[in-house]
Amino acid sequence: MPLIHISLRAGKPEAYRQAIFDSLYRAMREALSVPEDDQFMTISEYDAANFRYGNAYGVARSADVVYIQITVFNTRTAEQKKALFRRIAELLGKKPGIRAEDVFVNIVDAAKENWSVGHGLAQFA
Amino acid sequence: MPLIHISLRAGKPEAYRQAIFDSLYRAMREALSVPEDDQFMTISEYDAANFRYGNAYGVARSADVVYIQITVFNTRTAEQKKALFRRIAELLGKKPGIRAEDVFVNIVDAAKENWSVGHGLAQFA
Amino acid sequence: MPLIHISLRAGKPEAYRQAIFDSLYRAMREALSVPEDDQFMTISEYDAANFRYGNAYGVARSADVVYIQITVFNTRTAEQKKALFRRIAELLGKKPGIRAEDVFVNIVDAAKENWSVGHGLAQFA
Repeated sequence: MPLIHISLRAGKPEAYRQAIFDSLYRAMREALSVPEDDQFMTISEYDAANFRYGNAYGVARSADVVYIQITVFNTRTAEQKKALFRRIAELLGKKPGIRAEDVFVNIVDAAKENWSVGHGLAQFA
Repeated sequence: MPLIHISLRAGKPEAYRQAIFDSLYRAMREALSVPEDDQFMTISEYDAANFRYGNAYGVARSADVVYIQITVFNTRTAEQKKALFRRIAELLGKKPGIRAEDVFVNIVDAAKENWSVGHGLAQFA
Repeated sequence: MPLIHISLRAGKPEAYRQAIFDSLYRAMREALSVPEDDQFMTISEYDAANFRYGNAYGVARSADVVYIQITVFNTRTAEQKKALFRRIAELLGKKPGIRAEDVFVNIVDAAKENWSVGHGLAQFA
């Protein structure tokens, strides 16, 4: 049940955006072993005037930069997070073909009691 | 001062979206005892191509699924969170009439020192 | 590498929105000492029907209220956060000229291992 909010500049074709979803889902399956069809994701598209990026930390980003904010269980280990970052960059690099410099990921930890995936229940508490 | 970001597929009438706000506000009043007029919420509408959902965890979701991400004080108890989940699903079920399967809620905890609700002050620190 | 998502009512001119970015960047430089060009921000604009605000906590907000959600390292101190809140309100007050009552800020803490600012690496872990 990771919940993913993706932010990028407007104008990419639908196939490109679907490929982002597909690659993120596959990365979560492989690095976090999430169950099948555990896909809860949105893509927000921004005009240039509403999207700001910089080149801090020695990374030459472009207007194709994608901000990926992923909220997960706070039980995920540092090793799992590292594997997730690596796999996301690899898979987005293949499909839809995003440069590794343009993959920006932030993880937010949330306790198991902080999730209700339907029916008003706290399924994991 | 919970801050709520709601994500759903585009196309619902305004009354439907207002009902989501109203029900979430009422759920917070009842389950979290937030003060009167403590309403800080946005609704983002997504085309099908920018919104992905799955059926993981044995829940038969539909295109009406709503992702509700709520940032609250990290002092909220597991019992309060359970009550909030239950009340949100009940109230959204009545108004605007969302199936319990389509109510997906994630809580993010933030310390009291992490909030400034105006004037540049940390009112709760 | 703070990641900032800004939410406000639609309709402000581009210069107004650029001024929000500029002031937030400057506030982060001064209060958090972030490196040069550490700018990762989005602005989402909402119609009135998709944006709800209230007057809780004795603050007379207007339709110009701005919700600023900032995810930062969980190593930031309460003093840094206070300085950030103060500086954000001061600078937004000057440029683009937002009333201090309308500046609503929430900080989300994320561990150093939770960030990948490019190349699939966990640069700060």
